[in-house]
Amino acid sequence: MTLTGGSRSGGRGVAADHVSLRRNNLSVVLRHVRDLGPRSRARIAADTGLNKATVSSLVAELVGRGLLREGPADSTRALGRPGQLVELDGTGVCGVGAEVNVDYLAVTALDLTGDTVSERRVPLDAAHLDPGTTLDRLAGLIREAVAAVDARGGQVAGVTLAVPGLVQGDTGELKLAPNLGWGEVPVIREMRERLGGPSYPLHVDNEANLAARAAYSELRKVEPVQDLVLLTGAVGVGGGMVSNGHLLRGGRGYSGEVGHMPVAPEGRTCGCGRTGCWETVVGLTALLHQATDGDDPVRDPSLDVERRLAEIIARAEAGEPRTLTALKDVGTWLGIGGAILVNILNPDVLVLGGYFAVLGPWLEEPLETAIRDRVIAPDGGGCRVVRSELGFTAAVRGGAQISLDQVFVDPTVIGRAGTGVAQ
Amino acid sequence: MTLTGGSRSGGRGVAADHVSLRRNNLSVVLRHVRDLGPRSRARIAADTGLNKATVSSLVAELVGRGLLREGPADSTRALGRPGQLVELDGTGVCGVGAEVNVDYLAVTALDLTGDTVSERRVPLDAAHLDPGTTLDRLAGLIREAVAAVDARGGQVAGVTLAVPGLVQGDTGELKLAPNLGWGEVPVIREMRERLGGPSYPLHVDNEANLAARAAYSELRKVEPVQDLVLLTGAVGVGGGMVSNGHLLRGGRGYSGEVGHMPVAPEGRTCGCGRTGCWETVVGLTALLHQATDGDDPVRDPSLDVERRLAEIIARAEAGEPRTLTALKDVGTWLGIGGAILVNILNPDVLVLGGYFAVLGPWLEEPLETAIRDRVIAPDGGGCRVVRSELGFTAAVRGGAQISLDQVFVDPTVIGRAGTGVAQ
Repeated sequence: MTLTGGSRSGGRGVAADHVSLRRNNLSVVLRHVRDLGPRSRARIAADTGLNKATVSSLVAELVGRGLLREGPADSTRALGRPGQLVELDGTGVCGVGAEVNVDYLAVTALDLTGDTVSERRVPLDAAHLDPGTTLDRLAGLIREAVAAVDARGGQVAGVTLAVPGLVQGDTGELKLAPNLGWGEVPVIREMRERLGGPSYPLHVDNEANLAARAAYSELRKVEPVQDLVLLTGAVGVGGGMVSNGHLLRGGRGYSGEVGHMPVAPEGRTCGCGRTGCWETVVGLTALLHQATDGDDPVRDPSLDVERRLAEIIARAEAGEPRTLTALKDVGTWLGIGGAILVNILNPDVLVLGGYFAVLGPWLEEPLETAIRDRVIAPDGGGCRVVRSELGFTAAVRGGAQISLDQVFVDPTVIGRAGTGVAQ
Repeated sequence: MTLTGGSRSGGRGVAADHVSLRRNNLSVVLRHVRDLGPRSRARIAADTGLNKATVSSLVAELVGRGLLREGPADSTRALGRPGQLVELDGTGVCGVGAEVNVDYLAVTALDLTGDTVSERRVPLDAAHLDPGTTLDRLAGLIREAVAAVDARGGQVAGVTLAVPGLVQGDTGELKLAPNLGWGEVPVIREMRERLGGPSYPLHVDNEANLAARAAYSELRKVEPVQDLVLLTGAVGVGGGMVSNGHLLRGGRGYSGEVGHMPVAPEGRTCGCGRTGCWETVVGLTALLHQATDGDDPVRDPSLDVERRLAEIIARAEAGEPRTLTALKDVGTWLGIGGAILVNILNPDVLVLGGYFAVLGPWLEEPLETAIRDRVIAPDGGGCRVVRSELGFTAAVRGGAQISLDQVFVDPTVIGRAGTGVAQ
């Protein structure tokens, strides 16, 4: 429940007039078909309480905007003339997510049904390049994705940039990304210039927030999860949190800086300059330093991280003691910090992302033990640990979904099919 | 923004029909008058976009239900016949909050305008009584508050119980309250029996959640805060969190167990049986053990906590070294755990409640230093530390407000004036 005084977006409540009522009902019908699958106009009317004439008019408008389309005949109908099902139109509208991370760039375009239209990931040692060069490279990948959407006659609903750092929500500026070595960068302005002032909206968000957004969608395909914490394991460690179906961002958009919880007072110096941050004992660098020598090629950030992790897995499967000890220590530290998050947030699910997901089989047991031991709520508060299956595409998928979310909230942001003009 | 699939309460969205539209508009008008003060029907119509005839009908219904009343003539009106202002009716409807804590019971009734109708707090060494006896005593205080509401011809909108422990949201059961020594207690059922099966709804919530609810209302009187963390300092330490105007509860309602963050691995054994929990270094017991000897009367839980704290303040003001050292240490530990919360949640405000508020002048400097040093976001993420001015009434005020919130969301839960029957 929104408390007294309402939400940041104006929660005193706006009385429903006929325009907002229509927009609300367009959104209800579009989300209904998305969540429950293809169905007839009569069924939508029965399910939503709207009258049939209104539903027909709403569906016609959504078809005109390229968001719904006529589907197959309704085979479940026993009597009378067969009804026509309507379904999400996957051809018209796409969201794009684009990520800068410490050792790769990635871009994904998803259509309205969530299918992948375009996906690229390239290794890049971004920590040793200047921001301008890295953004040039990312802009190139975004242009390729937009071209792929154009080539199928689609419209880009928006592009969301994922960055491993502090993003100020209201201005869209990156304030600090210690592991990239970036200070303040006006990423939206920089990217808008590189893309030639595009007509679609651009947003920027923390990569862990976006990965949590993507994990939420994945989990909800099989169960009605409402509260989750996602941990992104890379050189840095980020947290993305969904509570009661809402992404948590904090007052200025800086929430989820779990990598800098001071849990290891005797620990190593962090990229942020402090000592004892959680990521100094659970980040990928911590694992590699404990498990390998300095000249070991698995430490080389110019090599693809998946190949380097495959080598770690091979050593663990071969029973290499130094690797196994390092994995167990990282799993225990993961549980010490994880228990703090579970005590504070009581998520239904703790989702392991990034390298934590890849090495999950070795990390989970010490992690789960630490949570059982250190969380005060009975049975760890009911929290389960799961591995994300989205790999390193989680943040870009979440970015594409955030770009599409606005279409589901207000379908009128998309112009009628063929015009390509947002209304 | 609610993510794909919506909120726990059914976020796929319900299409607006005429009944729900009317209910929504009643809520809009009622909250409009609450938030912006007395105003004319014409002004309400202009502000909300509703037409004047609709506003007149909505106001008439809200007056009939005892929620609004005719106020003074509109003195701001220069031309034409004077308009009549409508204002919240403080006489009709009250919410009640009732708290069991380790060393006191408290009950408050607030009317719809937030004014206090009834308030009681009595010291009680609840940790050494059985739950039944304590609930008997609390039921007596609730009956007094209800009688005070009855005596002025009012209606009780609901009673919310505050407990210092884990509350399962969906069943309303207390699962565990280590500092009370209570295990599973079906508090709603027990209290409903003691109150003779009352017609008003009963709820139970964690005391820190309710204190956060109350702090949110207090802060919003002067600034548009949307994200806060409240810390309740008593024998135990609880956390209540509001994010983007929503109270965070977690998947099972167990969120905010900040007192059991494992921050002091070398620390004392906690009431929960674990070692090193945050409350073992910042709870009231930790302060008293460091600042006093065993036979010092300030340790006596049967004495009113405010009197005991007044003695601590007197010693600090007199410069007593042991007291000052203890306060500084507690402030530093408060900052170590506080920085974790600020890194994770990025609140606009960290609110000190309970004994932390009373001793705030001695705790704040080391606390703020620790936050500045340990929070990665620039300028502590913009988080300010403030002392709650609600004292030990925060949780009961929040409980009363939660009981009233439902009336503002759906004014039709209150029957028409005089009938006393919810519709």
